[in-house]
Amino acid sequence: MEDALARVARAPVVVHCAGRTDAGVHAAAQVVHFDAPVARPLRAWTFGVNSHLDKGVAVHWAAVVPDDFHARFSALDRSYRYSILNRPTRPGLHHGSLAWVRQPLDAGRMHEAAQALLGEHDFQTFRSAECQARHAVRTMHAVQVSREADRVLIEVRANGFLHNMVRILAGCLTLIGRGERPLDWMATLLAARDRREAAVTAHPQGLCFLQPSYPERFGIPDFAARRGAPWGPPTEAPRR
Amino acid sequence: MEDALARVARAPVVVHCAGRTDAGVHAAAQVVHFDAPVARPLRAWTFGVNSHLDKGVAVHWAAVVPDDFHARFSALDRSYRYSILNRPTRPGLHHGSLAWVRQPLDAGRMHEAAQALLGEHDFQTFRSAECQARHAVRTMHAVQVSREADRVLIEVRANGFLHNMVRILAGCLTLIGRGERPLDWMATLLAARDRREAAVTAHPQGLCFLQPSYPERFGIPDFAARRGAPWGPPTEAPRR
Repeated sequence: MEDALARVARAPVVVHCAGRTDAGVHAAAQVVHFDAPVARPLRAWTFGVNSHLDKGVAVHWAAVVPDDFHARFSALDRSYRYSILNRPTRPGLHHGSLAWVRQPLDAGRMHEAAQALLGEHDFQTFRSAECQARHAVRTMHAVQVSREADRVLIEVRANGFLHNMVRILAGCLTLIGRGERPLDWMATLLAARDRREAAVTAHPQGLCFLQPSYPERFGIPDFAARRGAPWGPPTEAPRR
Repeated sequence: MEDALARVARAPVVVHCAGRTDAGVHAAAQVVHFDAPVARPLRAWTFGVNSHLDKGVAVHWAAVVPDDFHARFSALDRSYRYSILNRPTRPGLHHGSLAWVRQPLDAGRMHEAAQALLGEHDFQTFRSAECQARHAVRTMHAVQVSREADRVLIEVRANGFLHNMVRILAGCLTLIGRGERPLDWMATLLAARDRREAAVTAHPQGLCFLQPSYPERFGIPDFAARRGAPWGPPTEAPRR
Protein backbone atom coordinates (compact mmCIF):
# COMPACT_ATOMS: atom_id res chain seq x y z
CA MET A 1 0.00 0.00 0.00
CA GLU A 2 2.77 2.42 0.92
CA ASP A 3 4.59 1.67 -2.34
CA ALA A 4 1.45 2.25 -4.39
CA LEU A 5 0.66 5.49 -2.57
CA ALA A 6 4.24 6.64 -3.01
CA ARG A 7 3.98 6.13 -6.76
CA VAL A 8 0.91 8.33 -6.89
CA ALA A 9 2.42 10.92 -4.54
CA ARG A 10 5.91 10.69 -6.08
CA ALA A 11 7.13 10.92 -2.48
CA PRO A 12 7.36 8.52 0.45
CA VAL A 13 4.07 7.83 2.27
CA VAL A 14 3.62 6.16 5.67
CA VAL A 15 0.23 4.56 6.40
CA HIS A 16 -1.42 3.84 9.75
CA CYS A 17 -3.88 0.93 9.86
CA ALA A 18 -7.03 0.45 11.93
CA GLY A 19 -6.25 -3.20 12.60
CA ARG A 20 -3.26 -5.42 12.11
CA THR A 21 -3.49 -8.53 9.93
CA ASP A 22 -0.83 -11.24 10.10
CA ALA A 23 0.45 -13.02 7.01
CA GLY A 24 -2.34 -15.13 5.52
CA VAL A 25 -5.08 -13.08 7.21
CA HIS A 26 -7.59 -11.19 5.03
CA ALA A 27 -9.18 -7.80 5.54
CA ALA A 28 -12.60 -6.81 4.18
CA ALA A 29 -12.72 -3.14 5.10
CA GLN A 30 -9.38 -2.09 6.48
CA VAL A 31 -9.11 1.64 7.11
CA VAL A 32 -5.75 3.42 6.80
CA HIS A 33 -4.78 7.05 7.06
CA PHE A 34 -1.72 8.92 5.84
CA ASP A 35 -0.48 12.47 5.66
CA ALA A 36 -0.52 13.24 1.95
CA PRO A 37 2.78 14.85 0.94
CA VAL A 38 1.10 16.37 -2.12
CA ALA A 39 -2.41 17.40 -3.14
CA ARG A 40 -4.09 14.93 -5.48
CA PRO A 41 -7.74 14.47 -6.48
CA LEU A 42 -9.49 11.71 -4.49
CA ARG A 43 -9.73 9.71 -7.71
CA ALA A 44 -5.94 9.49 -7.72
CA TRP A 45 -5.97 8.09 -4.17
CA THR A 46 -8.45 5.38 -5.19
CA PHE A 47 -8.34 4.43 -8.88
CA GLY A 48 -4.78 5.69 -9.29
CA VAL A 49 -3.49 3.72 -6.30
CA ASN A 50 -5.38 0.60 -7.39
CA SER A 51 -3.44 0.53 -10.64
CA HIS A 52 -0.26 0.03 -8.59
CA LEU A 53 -1.60 -2.51 -6.08
CA ASP A 54 -1.48 -6.30 -6.22
CA LYS A 55 -4.69 -8.00 -7.36
CA GLY A 56 -5.64 -9.09 -3.87
CA VAL A 57 -5.76 -5.55 -2.48
CA ALA A 58 -7.97 -2.69 -3.64
CA VAL A 59 -8.81 0.80 -2.40
CA HIS A 60 -12.57 1.39 -2.40
CA TRP A 61 -12.89 4.81 -0.91
CA ALA A 62 -10.85 7.86 0.08
CA ALA A 63 -11.69 11.09 1.84
CA VAL A 64 -9.97 14.03 3.48
CA VAL A 65 -10.35 13.63 7.25
CA PRO A 66 -9.96 16.06 10.17
CA ASP A 67 -6.42 16.52 11.46
CA ASP A 68 -7.19 14.69 14.69
CA PHE A 69 -8.32 11.50 12.93
CA HIS A 70 -6.07 8.49 13.40
CA ALA A 71 -7.00 5.17 11.77
CA ARG A 72 -5.76 3.24 14.79
CA PHE A 73 -6.25 5.50 17.80
CA SER A 74 -9.61 6.98 16.77
CA ALA A 75 -11.20 3.55 16.30
CA LEU A 76 -13.90 2.70 18.84
CA ASP A 77 -13.83 -1.01 18.11
CA ARG A 78 -12.84 -3.62 15.56
CA SER A 79 -14.64 -6.68 14.19
CA TYR A 80 -13.12 -9.94 13.02
CA ARG A 81 -14.58 -13.10 11.58
CA TYR A 82 -13.03 -16.55 11.78
CA SER A 83 -14.48 -18.97 9.17
CA ILE A 84 -14.20 -22.72 9.56
CA LEU A 85 -15.18 -25.22 6.88
CA ASN A 86 -16.58 -28.08 8.95
CA ARG A 87 -16.78 -31.27 6.91
CA PRO A 88 -14.78 -34.45 6.41
CA THR A 89 -12.99 -33.33 3.25
CA ARG A 90 -10.64 -30.38 2.88
CA PRO A 91 -11.64 -27.14 1.10
CA GLY A 92 -11.18 -26.78 -2.65
CA LEU A 93 -12.86 -23.51 -3.64
CA HIS A 94 -11.98 -20.70 -1.23
CA HIS A 95 -9.23 -22.81 0.32
CA GLY A 96 -7.22 -19.64 0.98
CA SER A 97 -9.93 -18.00 3.10
CA LEU A 98 -11.22 -20.87 5.22
CA ALA A 99 -9.86 -22.88 8.09
CA TRP A 100 -10.84 -26.55 8.08
CA VAL A 101 -12.01 -28.76 10.94
CA ARG A 102 -13.00 -32.28 9.95
CA GLN A 103 -14.53 -33.32 13.29
CA PRO A 104 -18.18 -32.24 13.78
CA LEU A 105 -18.47 -28.92 15.62
CA ASP A 106 -21.40 -27.98 17.84
CA ALA A 107 -21.74 -24.29 16.95
CA GLY A 108 -24.45 -23.75 19.57
CA ARG A 109 -22.14 -25.03 22.30
CA MET A 110 -19.32 -22.83 21.00
CA HIS A 111 -21.61 -19.81 21.04
CA GLU A 112 -22.73 -20.46 24.60
CA ALA A 113 -19.17 -20.97 25.82
CA ALA A 114 -17.96 -17.84 24.02
CA GLN A 115 -20.36 -15.57 25.93
CA ALA A 116 -17.97 -15.78 28.90
CA LEU A 117 -15.69 -13.47 26.90
CA LEU A 118 -18.15 -10.57 26.92
CA GLY A 119 -17.21 -7.48 28.87
CA GLU A 120 -13.88 -6.23 30.23
CA HIS A 121 -11.31 -8.94 30.91
CA ASP A 122 -7.59 -9.46 31.11
CA PHE A 123 -6.99 -11.53 27.96
CA GLN A 124 -3.45 -12.53 28.97
CA THR A 125 -4.25 -16.19 28.12
CA PHE A 126 -5.16 -15.22 24.57
CA ARG A 127 -2.06 -13.33 23.40
CA SER A 128 1.03 -14.64 21.68
CA ALA A 129 4.44 -14.49 23.34
CA GLU A 130 5.40 -11.80 20.81
CA CYS A 131 2.50 -9.51 21.76
CA GLN A 132 3.85 -6.03 22.47
CA ALA A 133 0.72 -4.45 24.00
CA ARG A 134 1.39 -2.80 27.38
CA HIS A 135 -1.41 -4.69 29.05
CA ALA A 136 -3.98 -7.34 28.09
CA VAL A 137 -7.20 -5.74 29.31
CA ARG A 138 -9.74 -5.44 26.51
CA THR A 139 -13.50 -5.04 26.34
CA MET A 140 -15.40 -7.56 24.25
CA HIS A 141 -18.60 -6.04 22.91
CA ALA A 142 -20.01 -8.98 20.96
CA VAL A 143 -19.19 -12.65 20.35
CA GLN A 144 -21.26 -14.80 18.06
CA VAL A 145 -20.74 -18.33 16.79
CA SER A 146 -23.13 -19.55 14.12
CA ARG A 147 -23.38 -22.27 11.51
CA GLU A 148 -24.19 -21.68 7.84
CA ALA A 149 -24.51 -25.10 6.22
CA ASP A 150 -21.01 -26.61 6.44
CA ARG A 151 -19.36 -23.43 7.73
CA VAL A 152 -18.95 -22.34 11.33
CA LEU A 153 -18.41 -18.60 11.73
CA ILE A 154 -16.93 -16.97 14.82
CA GLU A 155 -17.52 -13.21 14.90
CA VAL A 156 -16.06 -10.94 17.55
CA ARG A 157 -16.12 -7.22 18.20
CA ALA A 158 -13.96 -5.58 20.87
CA ASN A 159 -12.31 -2.24 21.57
CA GLY A 160 -9.02 -3.86 20.64
CA PHE A 161 -7.34 -7.20 20.09
CA LEU A 162 -4.01 -8.62 21.20
CA HIS A 163 -1.52 -10.36 18.92
CA ASN A 164 -3.09 -13.65 17.68
CA MET A 165 -6.03 -13.16 20.05
CA VAL A 166 -8.82 -14.14 17.63
CA ARG A 167 -6.86 -17.12 16.33
CA ILE A 168 -6.19 -18.40 19.88
CA LEU A 169 -9.87 -17.88 20.77
CA ALA A 170 -10.84 -19.81 17.63
CA GLY A 171 -8.53 -22.66 18.57
CA CYS A 172 -10.07 -22.89 22.06
CA LEU A 173 -13.66 -22.63 20.84
CA THR A 174 -12.97 -25.40 18.33
CA LEU A 175 -11.97 -27.76 21.16
CA ILE A 176 -15.20 -26.86 22.98
CA GLY A 177 -17.17 -27.41 19.77
CA ARG A 178 -15.63 -30.86 19.44
CA GLY A 179 -16.70 -31.65 22.98
CA GLU A 180 -13.13 -32.03 24.19
CA ARG A 181 -13.36 -29.21 26.74
CA PRO A 182 -16.18 -28.22 29.13
CA LEU A 183 -18.61 -25.42 28.46
CA ASP A 184 -17.00 -23.21 31.11
CA TRP A 185 -13.48 -23.59 29.72
CA MET A 186 -13.32 -20.04 28.35
CA ALA A 187 -13.98 -18.65 31.84
CA THR A 188 -11.34 -20.96 33.28
CA LEU A 189 -8.85 -19.80 30.66
CA LEU A 190 -9.56 -16.12 31.33
CA ALA A 191 -8.92 -16.67 35.03
CA ALA A 192 -5.72 -18.61 34.39
CA ARG A 193 -3.97 -15.66 32.69
CA ASP A 194 -1.54 -18.14 31.12
CA ARG A 195 -1.11 -18.67 27.37
CA ARG A 196 0.08 -22.25 27.97
CA GLU A 197 -3.39 -23.26 29.22
CA ALA A 198 -5.08 -22.40 25.91
CA ALA A 199 -5.30 -24.27 22.60
CA VAL A 200 -2.86 -23.83 19.75
CA THR A 201 -3.26 -20.75 17.55
CA ALA A 202 -5.72 -21.50 14.73
CA HIS A 203 -4.54 -21.17 11.12
CA PRO A 204 -4.37 -17.62 9.72
CA GLN A 205 -6.36 -18.21 6.52
CA GLY A 206 -9.65 -18.53 8.45
CA LEU A 207 -9.32 -15.01 9.79
CA CYS A 208 -10.71 -11.85 8.25
CA PHE A 209 -10.54 -8.36 9.72
CA LEU A 210 -14.04 -7.11 8.98
CA GLN A 211 -13.97 -3.41 9.86
CA PRO A 212 -13.25 -0.80 12.51
CA SER A 213 -15.82 1.72 13.71
CA TYR A 214 -15.23 5.42 14.46
CA PRO A 215 -17.05 8.30 16.10
CA GLU A 216 -19.66 9.60 13.67
CA ARG A 217 -18.08 13.04 13.31
CA PHE A 218 -15.23 11.60 11.21
CA GLY A 219 -17.68 10.57 8.49
CA ILE A 220 -16.15 7.13 7.90
CA PRO A 221 -18.80 4.97 6.19
CA ASP A 222 -20.21 1.92 7.93
CA PHE A 223 -18.93 -0.55 5.39
CA ALA A 224 -20.91 -3.52 6.71
CA ALA A 225 -24.21 -1.67 6.64
CA ARG A 226 -23.62 -0.35 3.14
CA ARG A 227 -22.40 -3.60 1.72
CA GLY A 228 -25.36 -5.54 3.03
CA ALA A 229 -22.96 -8.21 4.23
CA PRO A 230 -20.49 -7.94 7.08
CA TRP A 231 -17.39 -8.49 4.99
CA GLY A 232 -17.38 -6.06 2.17
CA PRO A 233 -16.71 -2.52 1.18
CA PRO A 234 -19.36 0.09 0.37
CA THR A 235 -21.24 -0.18 -2.89
CA GLU A 236 -20.58 3.39 -3.88
CA ALA A 237 -17.76 5.71 -3.01
CA PRO A 238 -19.10 8.78 -1.22
CA ARG A 239 -18.83 11.95 -3.28
CA ARG A 240 -16.45 14.55 -1.92
CA MET B 1 -7.53 -35.23 -11.38
CA GLU B 2 -6.43 -38.04 -13.67
CA ASP B 3 -2.88 -37.82 -12.33
CA ALA B 4 -4.08 -37.96 -8.73
CA LEU B 5 -6.38 -40.90 -9.45
CA ALA B 6 -3.59 -42.69 -11.28
CA ARG B 7 -1.35 -42.36 -8.24
CA VAL B 8 -3.97 -44.01 -6.07
CA ALA B 9 -4.75 -46.67 -8.69
CA ARG B 10 -1.10 -47.14 -9.70
CA ALA B 11 -2.48 -47.37 -13.23
CA PRO B 12 -3.73 -44.86 -15.80
CA VAL B 13 -7.24 -43.49 -15.20
CA VAL B 14 -9.43 -41.56 -17.65
CA VAL B 15 -12.17 -39.35 -16.19
CA HIS B 16 -15.40 -38.14 -17.79
CA CYS B 17 -16.83 -34.85 -16.51
CA ALA B 18 -20.44 -33.69 -16.19
CA GLY B 19 -19.61 -30.21 -17.44
CA ARG B 20 -16.63 -28.59 -19.04
CA THR B 21 -14.92 -25.63 -17.39
CA ASP B 22 -12.55 -23.42 -19.36
CA ALA B 23 -9.32 -22.09 -17.87
CA GLY B 24 -10.15 -19.61 -15.11
CA VAL B 25 -13.64 -21.05 -14.57
CA HIS B 26 -14.50 -22.60 -11.19
CA ALA B 27 -16.62 -25.63 -10.36
CA ALA B 28 -18.53 -26.08 -7.11
CA ALA B 29 -19.85 -29.60 -7.53
CA GLN B 30 -18.36 -31.15 -10.62
CA VAL B 31 -19.19 -34.82 -11.05
CA VAL B 32 -16.77 -37.17 -12.80
CA HIS B 33 -16.83 -40.89 -13.39
CA PHE B 34 -14.07 -43.32 -14.25
CA ASP B 35 -13.64 -47.05 -14.68
CA ALA B 36 -11.48 -48.03 -11.74
CA PRO B 37 -8.64 -50.25 -12.91
CA VAL B 38 -8.25 -51.65 -9.38
CA ALA B 39 -10.44 -52.11 -6.32
CA ARG B 40 -9.81 -49.52 -3.61
CA PRO B 41 -11.89 -48.50 -0.58
CA LEU B 42 -13.97 -45.37 -1.18
CA ARG B 43 -11.77 -43.55 1.34
CA ALA B 44 -8.85 -44.00 -1.06
CA TRP B 45 -10.87 -42.39 -3.88
CA THR B 46 -11.64 -39.36 -1.68
CA PHE B 47 -9.07 -38.68 1.05
CA GLY B 48 -6.34 -40.57 -0.79
CA VAL B 49 -6.89 -38.69 -4.04
CA ASN B 50 -7.09 -35.35 -2.20
CA SER B 51 -3.57 -35.83 -0.91
CA HIS B 52 -2.36 -35.77 -4.53
CA LEU B 53 -4.49 -32.87 -5.80
CA ASP B 54 -3.66 -29.17 -5.98
CA LYS B 55 -5.05 -27.01 -3.19
CA GLY B 56 -7.81 -25.55 -5.36
CA VAL B 57 -9.38 -28.93 -6.16
CA ALA B 58 -10.83 -31.43 -3.69
CA VAL B 59 -12.86 -34.63 -3.92
CA HIS B 60 -15.80 -34.57 -1.51
CA TRP B 61 -17.56 -37.77 -2.26
CA ALA B 62 -17.20 -41.05 -4.11
CA ALA B 63 -19.51 -43.96 -4.75
CA VAL B 64 -19.75 -47.06 -6.91
CA VAL B 65 -22.33 -46.38 -9.62
CA PRO B 66 -24.30 -48.64 -11.98
CA ASP B 67 -22.50 -49.62 -15.18
CA ASP B 68 -24.80 -47.48 -17.32
CA PHE B 69 -23.99 -44.25 -15.44
CA HIS B 70 -22.05 -41.67 -17.43
CA ALA B 71 -21.15 -38.34 -15.76
CA ARG B 72 -21.79 -36.46 -18.99
CA PHE B 73 -24.43 -38.42 -20.88
CA SER B 74 -26.59 -39.36 -17.90
CA ALA B 75 -26.91 -35.73 -16.74
CA LEU B 76 -30.40 -34.27 -17.04
CA ASP B 77 -29.25 -30.69 -16.75
CA ARG B 78 -26.44 -28.45 -15.57
CA SER B 79 -26.40 -25.24 -13.58
CA TYR B 80 -23.94 -22.38 -13.82
CA ARG B 81 -23.59 -19.10 -11.98
CA TYR B 82 -21.93 -15.98 -13.32
CA SER B 83 -20.97 -13.52 -10.53
CA ILE B 84 -20.33 -9.85 -11.23
CA LEU B 85 -18.98 -7.40 -8.70
CA ASN B 86 -20.82 -4.22 -9.61
CA ARG B 87 -19.17 -1.17 -8.10
CA PRO B 88 -16.79 1.59 -9.17
CA THR B 89 -13.63 -0.02 -7.77
CA ARG B 90 -12.15 -3.35 -8.78
CA PRO B 91 -12.34 -6.47 -6.57
CA GLY B 92 -9.70 -7.14 -3.92
CA LEU B 93 -10.93 -10.11 -1.89
CA HIS B 94 -12.26 -12.89 -4.14
CA HIS B 95 -10.77 -11.21 -7.20
CA GLY B 96 -10.21 -14.63 -8.77
CA SER B 97 -13.87 -15.63 -8.62
CA LEU B 98 -15.68 -12.46 -9.63
CA ALA B 99 -16.10 -10.53 -12.84
CA TRP B 100 -16.19 -6.76 -12.44
CA VAL B 101 -18.49 -4.21 -14.06
CA ARG B 102 -18.00 -0.64 -12.89
CA GLN B 103 -21.09 0.86 -14.57
CA PRO B 104 -24.34 0.46 -12.58
CA LEU B 105 -26.30 -2.63 -13.63
CA ASP B 106 -30.08 -2.90 -13.44
CA ALA B 107 -30.44 -6.51 -12.32
CA GLY B 108 -34.23 -6.41 -12.62
CA ARG B 109 -33.95 -5.38 -16.26
CA MET B 110 -31.40 -8.11 -16.89
CA HIS B 111 -33.70 -10.68 -15.30
CA GLU B 112 -36.65 -9.62 -17.39
CA ALA B 113 -34.64 -9.66 -20.62
CA ALA B 114 -33.16 -13.07 -19.79
CA GLN B 115 -36.57 -14.75 -19.61
CA ALA B 116 -36.57 -14.78 -23.43
CA LEU B 117 -33.99 -17.58 -23.17
CA LEU B 118 -36.38 -19.99 -21.46
CA GLY B 119 -37.44 -23.07 -23.39
CA GLU B 120 -35.97 -24.78 -26.44
CA HIS B 121 -33.98 -22.53 -28.75
CA ASP B 122 -31.20 -22.65 -31.28
CA PHE B 123 -28.40 -20.92 -29.34
CA GLN B 124 -26.17 -20.49 -32.41
CA THR B 125 -25.60 -16.82 -31.49
CA PHE B 126 -24.24 -17.85 -28.11
CA ARG B 127 -21.47 -20.30 -29.02
CA SER B 128 -17.82 -19.67 -29.72
CA ALA B 129 -16.30 -20.31 -33.13
CA GLU B 130 -14.47 -23.30 -31.61
CA CYS B 131 -17.66 -24.97 -30.38
CA GLN B 132 -17.71 -28.58 -31.54
CA ALA B 133 -21.31 -29.48 -30.69
CA ARG B 134 -23.22 -31.02 -33.61
CA HIS B 135 -26.06 -28.56 -33.27
CA ALA B 136 -26.94 -25.57 -31.09
CA VAL B 137 -30.43 -26.50 -29.90
CA ARG B 138 -30.63 -26.52 -26.11
CA THR B 139 -33.48 -26.27 -23.61
CA MET B 140 -33.14 -23.60 -20.94
CA HIS B 141 -34.99 -24.62 -17.79
CA ALA B 142 -34.32 -21.60 -15.57
CA VAL B 143 -32.69 -18.19 -15.85
CA GLN B 144 -32.43 -15.86 -12.88
CA VAL B 145 -30.63 -12.57 -12.46
CA SER B 146 -30.53 -11.13 -8.96
CA ARG B 147 -28.62 -8.57 -6.95
CA GLU B 148 -27.03 -9.24 -3.57
CA ALA B 149 -25.66 -5.92 -2.34
CA ASP B 150 -22.86 -5.04 -4.79
CA ARG B 151 -22.98 -8.37 -6.63
CA VAL B 152 -25.12 -9.28 -9.60
CA LEU B 153 -25.62 -13.02 -10.01
CA ILE B 154 -26.73 -14.69 -13.23
CA GLU B 155 -27.88 -18.28 -12.70
CA VAL B 156 -28.83 -20.59 -15.54
CA ARG B 157 -29.94 -24.20 -15.78
CA ALA B 158 -30.26 -26.02 -19.10
CA ASN B 159 -30.05 -29.53 -20.48
CA GLY B 160 -26.69 -28.57 -21.93
CA PHE B 161 -24.47 -25.61 -22.76
CA LEU B 162 -22.39 -24.74 -25.79
CA HIS B 163 -18.78 -23.60 -25.71
CA ASN B 164 -18.61 -20.18 -23.97
CA MET B 165 -22.43 -19.99 -23.92
CA VAL B 166 -22.84 -18.70 -20.35
CA ARG B 167 -20.02 -16.19 -20.77
CA ILE B 168 -21.52 -14.82 -24.00
CA LEU B 169 -24.96 -14.65 -22.35
CA ALA B 170 -23.38 -12.78 -19.43
CA GLY B 171 -21.73 -10.31 -21.80
CA CYS B 172 -25.04 -9.59 -23.55
CA LEU B 173 -27.04 -9.30 -20.31
CA THR B 174 -24.45 -6.86 -18.98
CA LEU B 175 -25.06 -4.53 -21.93
CA ILE B 176 -28.82 -4.73 -21.27
CA GLY B 177 -28.20 -4.06 -17.57
CA ARG B 178 -26.21 -0.96 -18.49
CA GLY B 179 -29.11 0.23 -20.61
CA GLU B 180 -27.10 0.05 -23.83
CA ARG B 181 -29.36 -2.51 -25.49
CA PRO B 182 -33.17 -2.83 -25.50
CA LEU B 183 -35.10 -5.21 -23.28
CA ASP B 184 -35.93 -7.50 -26.22
CA TRP B 185 -32.32 -7.80 -27.39
CA MET B 186 -31.95 -11.42 -26.19
CA ALA B 187 -34.89 -12.46 -28.41
CA THR B 188 -33.37 -10.55 -31.33
CA LEU B 189 -30.05 -12.30 -30.78
CA LEU B 190 -31.65 -15.75 -30.61
CA ALA B 191 -33.41 -15.08 -33.93
CA ALA B 192 -30.23 -13.76 -35.58
CA ARG B 193 -28.35 -17.08 -35.18
CA ASP B 194 -25.08 -15.17 -35.63
CA ARG B 195 -22.31 -14.95 -33.02
CA ARG B 196 -21.18 -11.60 -34.45
CA GLU B 197 -24.40 -9.92 -33.31
CA ALA B 198 -23.76 -10.70 -29.64
CA ALA B 199 -21.51 -9.04 -27.06
CA VAL B 200 -17.94 -10.07 -26.34
CA THR B 201 -17.43 -13.17 -24.20
CA ALA B 202 -17.38 -12.18 -20.52
CA HIS B 203 -14.27 -12.96 -18.43
CA PRO B 204 -13.90 -16.55 -17.24
CA GLN B 205 -13.29 -15.82 -13.54
CA GLY B 206 -16.92 -14.82 -12.98
CA LEU B 207 -18.14 -18.25 -14.01
CA CYS B 208 -18.77 -21.21 -11.75
CA PHE B 209 -20.19 -24.58 -12.79
CA LEU B 210 -22.60 -25.25 -9.93
CA GLN B 211 -23.76 -28.81 -10.44
CA PRO B 212 -25.33 -31.36 -12.77
CA SER B 213 -28.46 -33.31 -11.93
CA TYR B 214 -29.12 -36.98 -12.66
CA PRO B 215 -32.04 -39.40 -12.59
CA GLU B 216 -32.70 -40.36 -8.99
CA ARG B 217 -31.90 -44.04 -9.49
CA PHE B 218 -28.17 -43.25 -9.75
CA GLY B 219 -28.13 -41.97 -6.17
CA ILE B 220 -26.00 -38.91 -6.88
CA PRO B 221 -26.55 -36.44 -4.03
CA ASP B 222 -28.17 -33.08 -4.66
CA PHE B 223 -25.16 -31.03 -3.66
CA ALA B 224 -26.93 -27.68 -3.62
CA ALA B 225 -29.73 -28.89 -1.38
CA ARG B 226 -27.36 -30.58 1.04
CA ARG B 227 -24.93 -27.69 1.21
CA GLY B 228 -27.63 -25.15 1.95
CA ALA B 229 -26.07 -22.87 -0.64
CA PRO B 230 -26.08 -23.37 -4.40
CA TRP B 231 -22.32 -23.59 -4.79
CA GLY B 232 -21.02 -26.17 -2.45
CA PRO B 233 -20.54 -29.84 -1.88
CA PRO B 234 -22.43 -32.00 0.60
CA THR B 235 -21.66 -31.64 4.28
CA GLU B 236 -21.19 -35.32 4.82
CA ALA B 237 -20.04 -38.04 2.51
CA PRO B 238 -22.66 -40.75 2.21
CA ARG B 239 -21.70 -43.99 3.91
CA ARG B 240 -21.20 -46.97 1.63
